[in-house]
Amino acid sequence: MAEAMVLCRVPRWSVGLWASPGWWRTTCTLRALVRPKRGPGCPGGASGPLACSMFSKVSSCTPEVMLTQERYPVQRLPFSVVSEEDLAAFERLVPGRVVTDPEELEVSNVDWLRTARGCSKVLLRPRTSEEVSRILRYCHERNLAVNPQGGNTGLVGGSVPVFDEIILSTALMNQVTSFNSVSGILTCQAGCVLEGLSRYVQERDFVMPLDLGAKGSCHIGGNVATNAGGLRFLRYGSLHGTVLGLEVVLADGTVLDCLTSLRKDNTGYDLKQLFIGSEGTLGVITAVSILCPPRPKAVNVAFLGCPGFAEVLQTFSTCRGMLGEILSAFEFMDAECMQLVQQHLHLASPVQESAFYLLVETSGSSTGHDAEKLGCFLEQVLGSGLVTDGTVATDESKAQALWALRERITEALSRDGYVYKYDVSLPVERLYDLVTDLRARLGSQARRVVGYGHLGDGNLHLNVTVDAFSAALLDTLEPYVYAWTAGQRGSVSAEHGLGFRKRDALRYSKPPPAVQLMQQLKALLDPKGILNPYKLLPTQA
Amino acid sequence: MAEAMVLCRVPRWSVGLWASPGWWRTTCTLRALVRPKRGPGCPGGASGPLACSMFSKVSSCTPEVMLTQERYPVQRLPFSVVSEEDLAAFERLVPGRVVTDPEELEVSNVDWLRTARGCSKVLLRPRTSEEVSRILRYCHERNLAVNPQGGNTGLVGGSVPVFDEIILSTALMNQVTSFNSVSGILTCQAGCVLEGLSRYVQERDFVMPLDLGAKGSCHIGGNVATNAGGLRFLRYGSLHGTVLGLEVVLADGTVLDCLTSLRKDNTGYDLKQLFIGSEGTLGVITAVSILCPPRPKAVNVAFLGCPGFAEVLQTFSTCRGMLGEILSAFEFMDAECMQLVQQHLHLASPVQESAFYLLVETSGSSTGHDAEKLGCFLEQVLGSGLVTDGTVATDESKAQALWALRERITEALSRDGYVYKYDVSLPVERLYDLVTDLRARLGSQARRVVGYGHLGDGNLHLNVTVDAFSAALLDTLEPYVYAWTAGQRGSVSAEHGLGFRKRDALRYSKPPPAVQLMQQLKALLDPKGILNPYKLLPTQA
Repeated sequence: MAEAMVLCRVPRWSVGLWASPGWWRTTCTLRALVRPKRGPGCPGGASGPLACSMFSKVSSCTPEVMLTQERYPVQRLPFSVVSEEDLAAFERLVPGRVVTDPEELEVSNVDWLRTARGCSKVLLRPRTSEEVSRILRYCHERNLAVNPQGGNTGLVGGSVPVFDEIILSTALMNQVTSFNSVSGILTCQAGCVLEGLSRYVQERDFVMPLDLGAKGSCHIGGNVATNAGGLRFLRYGSLHGTVLGLEVVLADGTVLDCLTSLRKDNTGYDLKQLFIGSEGTLGVITAVSILCPPRPKAVNVAFLGCPGFAEVLQTFSTCRGMLGEILSAFEFMDAECMQLVQQHLHLASPVQESAFYLLVETSGSSTGHDAEKLGCFLEQVLGSGLVTDGTVATDESKAQALWALRERITEALSRDGYVYKYDVSLPVERLYDLVTDLRARLGSQARRVVGYGHLGDGNLHLNVTVDAFSAALLDTLEPYVYAWTAGQRGSVSAEHGLGFRKRDALRYSKPPPAVQLMQQLKALLDPKGILNPYKLLPTQA
Repeated sequence: MAEAMVLCRVPRWSVGLWASPGWWRTTCTLRALVRPKRGPGCPGGASGPLACSMFSKVSSCTPEVMLTQERYPVQRLPFSVVSEEDLAAFERLVPGRVVTDPEELEVSNVDWLRTARGCSKVLLRPRTSEEVSRILRYCHERNLAVNPQGGNTGLVGGSVPVFDEIILSTALMNQVTSFNSVSGILTCQAGCVLEGLSRYVQERDFVMPLDLGAKGSCHIGGNVATNAGGLRFLRYGSLHGTVLGLEVVLADGTVLDCLTSLRKDNTGYDLKQLFIGSEGTLGVITAVSILCPPRPKAVNVAFLGCPGFAEVLQTFSTCRGMLGEILSAFEFMDAECMQLVQQHLHLASPVQESAFYLLVETSGSSTGHDAEKLGCFLEQVLGSGLVTDGTVATDESKAQALWALRERITEALSRDGYVYKYDVSLPVERLYDLVTDLRARLGSQARRVVGYGHLGDGNLHLNVTVDAFSAALLDTLEPYVYAWTAGQRGSVSAEHGLGFRKRDALRYSKPPPAVQLMQQLKALLDPKGILNPYKLLPTQA
């Protein structure tokens, strides 16, 4: 069953959109892989739809991004500086795949949100784990810092250098190694783009267990390194459960082969778990083995209006009970979110104006059965007044349109002004209280305080928009949001990770002994600290 | 929603069976919690149904179990020996809960399979994590070895002392801390018995995400420490995905509080994962937070006969496609297994004699829909000749009877003679080849070579029965079985763990750098090596 193929050979920086045949959910907000084009361009704020799209890799019309080392109080650690001899050595290790052109490097030095910028002078593009091993062995000996990079779609500044770290890109490690059509187990290199993998397994009647808005750019290795959550989490669970094996290159170049393709393996400590969510700080993931569920034959999407958050919670309980095993997403957004997508994106609400909106998706193996279950559920929640209005889509294009209302909130937010972003986990029954509290606390200081997210996972995306960045407002928000979350034993980062920007918030979700053990693990696996420095672990213990 | 209650206050060593109200699957093979009663008794081999039941805690009629230190070539490590002063100190730490009576200790010194026996002189029964912390801090300072023990239902000698390690029992840590009826998240102490938890959450319309034959005795902490698989693995996946939080006491007494009740938490390394499957060698799990799925409204069980293993595999593929999200178990057994349960347990086969038998279970939210899906599937596999005969149970008692055919194989095996047991993961398409190869290799040396297990998980239980133990046969079996498994990149322990008996087989499933990293992790977390020594890690690196 082993087969090898190259996925996504579309030139990474080609102009325009990467056309995706897609499956059933739209990728219309995905404007990845746009060629970097710097210059004065059009004025910041007002811009064409493509260049300023939320998923543009690099926009041509936004102002220069300030260097991270200038914006934040951070000191370069005493790593070596890349020399001409180093570049010559790299050229021997990965011939023709050593990038030093500043224009090309810019794309990998700046993060997707355009709020962090490193000044790396070299990017390496290995094709194999052996090449990664040789590179890391060399860097380890030379005390050179390394920033592993996948699709560079992270939201916390974790995927770009802070100073001059060498960028180690997985872009050319894009081979599928094998797929077992009985078990649904896929094994591939870390640089495979998620959307390409989705297409690959869908053609074989399976689906990837994760799906993200950034799927057109993000790499599976990066997904695993950041323990990506996303839209199928409610149904298929965490990558800690679905990733079956990993190949990881350690800081000193040791190749750790835990790339088993087995559902069960209780031989010793489950080492791969250490690297899932370690954000490239403990090792470089070079290959992944992952369990793909069978492709559902029927998908339905309902979009509902709810009069209050209590009704949202009751609808969720009812939904779990009545839709059971076919429930695949339960997303919510508040009235402010709807106003945002209406105002900035001219999307029309398919339901009456409500305090809250829900998107409920089912995925199952029988069109008739699923429609019947969904019908009974809708009858129940509409009849009892939990839901006041709703619409259902069974065909792909209408379902896409409903998903767009939820998926394009981020894009609408970015057009509303400067955005302060938070991504927290809370007990579901307290989930919206943080939005209400913060709205009261900020009053007229904020343009909007909005809440939306993966209710089924207890994951709130809390966003505050203002005219322009203000340090004073930041002080009002932080640590308030983190302390509030900690007060509920919540997580200050549900799915985005800590990266560079949130590393000092770690202590709000983890007690000192846990932080200390993390530091000990880092010291054990990367004693020189060369792997993705300045990330994940707090500045001071 | 927080509530506290005491589960399973049934005296641990009370006479007779612990009556279980059960749910729908029988616990008829569960004969746990039988009072230890030693003596010459009846002759070994022939015995009453209760005393020699496979799940008896200690049988009254089997010969004395040889001390592990006499049976195996193992040297005591230079730990301190428990003194009178130590006993007095323990009495101060856990007053009235220091067990030194030899009769009482015997039950905890001998493993469930009666093949391993330690000579511990003291068992401690803490009630809180603080007490565990104080005990471990004391033992760490005194260099006293500790054997954490849950329900003592392990199959690899991991749950009993090898020498005189102090037994640290979680039996009195049996409180449910909280249950959230919206999210289905349960938080409880480590010593809660799995069956008690199942009952508790079922009363609230949820189920535990794992189910085991040993559920009447095993502790949730032990389940997590050994990363238990079991009967619901196919549907709800690994504990690495369903366990949301852990509280763990480290070797030096540090309490590591990672007991979050959140589905998503990407703040730093996911430390709890280190302890899942670490078999008590890295820390003592004192509390668990776990995600419980909604209780299915309909359960169906089909028992089918298949003419060959190729047909078994095709039936599995068809089943996944047609039953989709309602498939909850896909178990197989060969003709020899059926003969065993017929001969030794007088169970009747509900279907025609076949080369292989399958048990397919569905669990869903709609009786009608599930019956229709199952009907279509059966029509398809019977019509195409993949399956030659079959029966379906929808009511609880008939379903129990069908499950008994599969669940009681172990019991039937134990009545067939001395049993060599293996538990391996293999690629599904090669799963049965190991049985066939071994049968040919052993010829008349073995009474029977049988294969059964969780086909849906790629997990084969391979058993060889003979008249009596023979070291020569052991040499024929090992490392042959391990090397064969390694040749397929399989796992030499799919779900049972390594414990004491399989620790030297680790290298067949993990490469040297992985074993080395495991040893480094052990040294980091337990520098004196006091936690469950002689277990999991190989004798020599």
